[in-house]
Amino acid sequence: MKVRAAVIGATGYAGAELVRILSGHPDVDLRLLTSRQHAGVPIERIFPAFRRRIGLVCEAYDPEKVCREADVVFTALPHQLPMGIVPELLRKGLKVIDLSADFRFKSRKCYEAFYQPHTAPELLQESVYGLSEWYRDAIRSARLIGNPGCYPTSILLPLLPLLRARLISPKGIIADSKSGVSGAGRSAVVGSLYCEVAESFKAYKVGNHRHNPEIDEVLSLGTGHEIHVTFIPHLLPMSRGMLSTIYAEALPDLDENVFRDCLKTAYAECAFVRILDAKQQPDTRNVRGTNYCDIGCHLDASYRRLVLTSAIDNLVKGAAGQAVQNMNLMMGFDETSGLDAIPYPL
Amino acid sequence: MKVRAAVIGATGYAGAELVRILSGHPDVDLRLLTSRQHAGVPIERIFPAFRRRIGLVCEAYDPEKVCREADVVFTALPHQLPMGIVPELLRKGLKVIDLSADFRFKSRKCYEAFYQPHTAPELLQESVYGLSEWYRDAIRSARLIGNPGCYPTSILLPLLPLLRARLISPKGIIADSKSGVSGAGRSAVVGSLYCEVAESFKAYKVGNHRHNPEIDEVLSLGTGHEIHVTFIPHLLPMSRGMLSTIYAEALPDLDENVFRDCLKTAYAECAFVRILDAKQQPDTRNVRGTNYCDIGCHLDASYRRLVLTSAIDNLVKGAAGQAVQNMNLMMGFDETSGLDAIPYPL
Amino acid sequence: MKVRAAVIGATGYAGAELVRILSGHPDVDLRLLTSRQHAGVPIERIFPAFRRRIGLVCEAYDPEKVCREADVVFTALPHQLPMGIVPELLRKGLKVIDLSADFRFKSRKCYEAFYQPHTAPELLQESVYGLSEWYRDAIRSARLIGNPGCYPTSILLPLLPLLRARLISPKGIIADSKSGVSGAGRSAVVGSLYCEVAESFKAYKVGNHRHNPEIDEVLSLGTGHEIHVTFIPHLLPMSRGMLSTIYAEALPDLDENVFRDCLKTAYAECAFVRILDAKQQPDTRNVRGTNYCDIGCHLDASYRRLVLTSAIDNLVKGAAGQAVQNMNLMMGFDETSGLDAIPYPL
Amino acid sequence: MKVRAAVIGATGYAGAELVRILSGHPDVDLRLLTSRQHAGVPIERIFPAFRRRIGLVCEAYDPEKVCREADVVFTALPHQLPMGIVPELLRKGLKVIDLSADFRFKSRKCYEAFYQPHTAPELLQESVYGLSEWYRDAIRSARLIGNPGCYPTSILLPLLPLLRARLISPKGIIADSKSGVSGAGRSAVVGSLYCEVAESFKAYKVGNHRHNPEIDEVLSLGTGHEIHVTFIPHLLPMSRGMLSTIYAEALPDLDENVFRDCLKTAYAECAFVRILDAKQQPDTRNVRGTNYCDIGCHLDASYRRLVLTSAIDNLVKGAAGQAVQNMNLMMGFDETSGLDAIPYPL
Repeated sequence: MKVRAAVIGATGYAGAELVRILSGHPDVDLRLLTSRQHAGVPIERIFPAFRRRIGLVCEAYDPEKVCREADVVFTALPHQLPMGIVPELLRKGLKVIDLSADFRFKSRKCYEAFYQPHTAPELLQESVYGLSEWYRDAIRSARLIGNPGCYPTSILLPLLPLLRARLISPKGIIADSKSGVSGAGRSAVVGSLYCEVAESFKAYKVGNHRHNPEIDEVLSLGTGHEIHVTFIPHLLPMSRGMLSTIYAEALPDLDENVFRDCLKTAYAECAFVRILDAKQQPDTRNVRGTNYCDIGCHLDASYRRLVLTSAIDNLVKGAAGQAVQNMNLMMGFDETSGLDAIPYPL
Repeated sequence: MKVRAAVIGATGYAGAELVRILSGHPDVDLRLLTSRQHAGVPIERIFPAFRRRIGLVCEAYDPEKVCREADVVFTALPHQLPMGIVPELLRKGLKVIDLSADFRFKSRKCYEAFYQPHTAPELLQESVYGLSEWYRDAIRSARLIGNPGCYPTSILLPLLPLLRARLISPKGIIADSKSGVSGAGRSAVVGSLYCEVAESFKAYKVGNHRHNPEIDEVLSLGTGHEIHVTFIPHLLPMSRGMLSTIYAEALPDLDENVFRDCLKTAYAECAFVRILDAKQQPDTRNVRGTNYCDIGCHLDASYRRLVLTSAIDNLVKGAAGQAVQNMNLMMGFDETSGLDAIPYPL
Repeated sequence: MKVRAAVIGATGYAGAELVRILSGHPDVDLRLLTSRQHAGVPIERIFPAFRRRIGLVCEAYDPEKVCREADVVFTALPHQLPMGIVPELLRKGLKVIDLSADFRFKSRKCYEAFYQPHTAPELLQESVYGLSEWYRDAIRSARLIGNPGCYPTSILLPLLPLLRARLISPKGIIADSKSGVSGAGRSAVVGSLYCEVAESFKAYKVGNHRHNPEIDEVLSLGTGHEIHVTFIPHLLPMSRGMLSTIYAEALPDLDENVFRDCLKTAYAECAFVRILDAKQQPDTRNVRGTNYCDIGCHLDASYRRLVLTSAIDNLVKGAAGQAVQNMNLMMGFDETSGLDAIPYPL
Repeated sequence: MKVRAAVIGATGYAGAELVRILSGHPDVDLRLLTSRQHAGVPIERIFPAFRRRIGLVCEAYDPEKVCREADVVFTALPHQLPMGIVPELLRKGLKVIDLSADFRFKSRKCYEAFYQPHTAPELLQESVYGLSEWYRDAIRSARLIGNPGCYPTSILLPLLPLLRARLISPKGIIADSKSGVSGAGRSAVVGSLYCEVAESFKAYKVGNHRHNPEIDEVLSLGTGHEIHVTFIPHLLPMSRGMLSTIYAEALPDLDENVFRDCLKTAYAECAFVRILDAKQQPDTRNVRGTNYCDIGCHLDASYRRLVLTSAIDNLVKGAAGQAVQNMNLMMGFDETSGLDAIPYPL
């Protein structure tokens, strides 16, 4: 029996990736797409790659209809909007996977410091942070998932095992992250124009990117230490892909293999995390369009400096793919269902 | 029962795409990869996107082993090499799909004028030109396929129906074609370097591209007219994708819909050819990574000038995808088997 | 004595290129920039490449001030706006070079058919079409220049000499043109976003691009024949650069050198037009950031098909550079003044 | 009186940039280009952007001829080659600016540990490290310049003032650097192919890039501390441009302005270093094709973490431009001579 799904906000880049993955998912019947801007327009008009393959027409959001048509709802809206509609969807018995920041935080105070007043704070404790590899059990029984940000996903996956195994210091961690432009979404803004981005590279939102408190909260809750990561995002002249280079202080007297082995053990049962061998480095190209996170590991032993590198596709493992992975867990499907296409070699 | 397949020349771009598609094909058991340059190297070392997904190791070419392991063989080698090995493979009862030019021509003279002396000319008449939509029946019963070039595929698909329906003149046809860089293959040459190609656009091989005689022969045989297309290839600053803009003289007193309807009728049963509606234009982005050919059609009625535009992915419908489509036909599989992933929206 | 210049509409891409060229021009004192959107903002805030080099602050448009500060005015505004302000500037004795379409046409009817009603039609006859190499004498004594469109520039330069020498037929000419994205300007529209353009290629505005009537009018006036060019523009995944591939019927019994020699002779005294030798093809990369037009020429003698290829930088020879070249002519400066930097090798 | 110059190794990317800059330099007469590979070929055949502008023909290297024709020689060869020819050039009275690593190190031991045995070690003490802003006086009177590497230039310029002013700790400095592909040169290698680089981002040579000891030696000599920087280079999908993001521990009780003011003071007289204001970040696009180094500065005060960002064009300030800046100093020209074109806005 297939699960019936709806995508709220189907015409952004993450929404469109949800549409792609769910349309090809063997256990899903994608029934309903909504769009504020494009109600009445066939999705294949907005993304002509879908011609002849996806016949759905975008609709205005109607909670009654969503509840009639869907068992699980993906909300791919700008933050602040989901907290207005999710409570009702839950009340009507739907499961919700929200791709915004609205249900990622445990601390209301923290959310409100970086976003705006929260109108459904009672859900923050119930909501499960959808970093699939780390919260599998809670995800399986959750009604509501706060799907992680792309930067946090790329940073948490390499750090969590090492911090929990106490192989690196919780202090002084730096994450130098680089993202493709699709992370900025499909909004018409000058900064995302081709001519502004091509042959260009820069840091942005230095010191005030909203993914920083998300990273810090998950690391702190996950390790029991108060952790602050120095996080500097940069914009890459490419569409899809994200790489984080993470610097941490290694504990004394450990060699590089200890760190790699710790990562390999932590993710031994995880289909989507690939720990690379010594001397190998992840490349965003190798995870493009996939749900993989590739992780490399290098120790500068003389200085006890550990350098972790992790690559994801910001729209897949960083958004739509991980959302579907979470749905698979919630519905009892195989975790890789709908996400197991062979990656493109280039 | 799965068919057992081998890829000869697995480490070029077309070879790697074959590996990707065949590895994910539900009816295929990919057993053997060969590479002159990389014998002994796991394919995932050369294309790390395949990590954990494809365990095969490239081998030196050994015809005995190929015959033991495979029922169907894809040869993805530079022209001149396949004609040296294909006769033996056929003798041993294998089916062969050759992606080079060696078995595309009916006329030995034509092949030899543009390539080199042919050492297996006796196979030219038997070999079937693998333009799947046009030679389906012959492909189904073929032992040997000459898989079409990428440019010819993008040019023949829009032209053949209109020429055969006598809606356009066979004289004076122009094909202005543009290809991504992957068409030049994975050879280390200065002209394919990033810095030589990025922010660059130019025509190349003007007046002497070897796909021109291929286009001319297929059109001439397919229509009964002696046809010569003026064909000018250009190099695009992108990896994958090809667009041909084709100019032809429309016969008098026809309106645009006649041409579009002719195309729609011709390809009504063809899963991979999408005829666009009036005012729509194909974009290489919409066929990237897919086996689709998207075709647009515009008539400048006052001057009876018909403008056809067709987009393919040069590595898929222009090479590996069409090769697999042909294998599907030869083996009696569903024509879309292994080629039906939902396209990426971006 | 330097000429004092103003740029009206300095914050679009063509405006910014004007600012760059005029700031480095040895005979110009750039005094005033205007911007509707960015009045009060230093130009180096909008284009930080200008940091420390250009101290001007954008101002709201004030015709009194423009007349006080400038001798020559460049209007780089969307069409329809210049015709509202140019008459006043001329009345006050300024010289005006308008980069929009408002003063490019001789035929008011033609302009109005493709744009909108013209509110200063009395200037259409006086205005000189600023294709520098062809209207030098008229430009020298003009008060008002209608600076050519980028596509027309790339198409007219190769065609005019051959048509006037009657070496090609005026009938059946095709121009298949490809432009970088900067041609679409700096407006925030979805179609110009990085993710919509990268790894993408398509035709656009097929059958209704407004540069078509401009091309036709100039060719018709320049040759005495009624000429219609089939013109199909395409969008390239790159910022700057334009290449037109032009197909024409050669007159009988001519060999390729006749055409090349005609071009070489026509442009012998023209610093910015480079006619390439046999077998050479222009590449947009070689004219990037320069005022050059590189032209290649190939004859398919058996079919009397002439193939011309011409490359320009759409923002320089296609806009700001040609505008400055025209100013040089009007002011009696050396034609290459301010435009003679050595091109970048990559 | 112009200085006569020669470029040894003119057909690589840095060599070609030297040719461009020197050809446009008002105080230089560029007389001679050499190339092992392309002897006898006009430079405009290899870099057609130079058509009609640079008439020189590449020659085989002949020290007699170099000495006859030139007063100053730029050697743009792979390391190991310059140390074979520079001693003779110096003996004959020429001044030499070497763009390789051969004369950058003071410590022969350090050079030999990372490169190969040095055959002209007697010149290491005499040679002046050509970081123009820091060694101006020594450069002015030098016979031989070891022109800095691109990564070191981008890292040393922001760090040196702060370390010397003792505003940051000499320990634990991290430089996360990203370079365009032209840094890999014009060699035909698979890793530099368009299809391998586009839509790709990765770290490379992690733990063993040869610019690391260069950075460490210059910082150590320049500050009197033994300094080791953790340096991780990455490859950007673009041609030109380099950005380093540098993390350092700020000394206590300082606010962000202290660091910025220190940088502004240090570079107050330096035309090519632009210190950005608070909240501003450098972008490689803004220095493309120029000799500028743009530097941004951010303090995360709660954690005393200073984040410096610096952007250069790897081929200009990172190679050819700085070489010419050094020549200007050596010859007593204005330091900006030949390097003062207005930057492109895009």
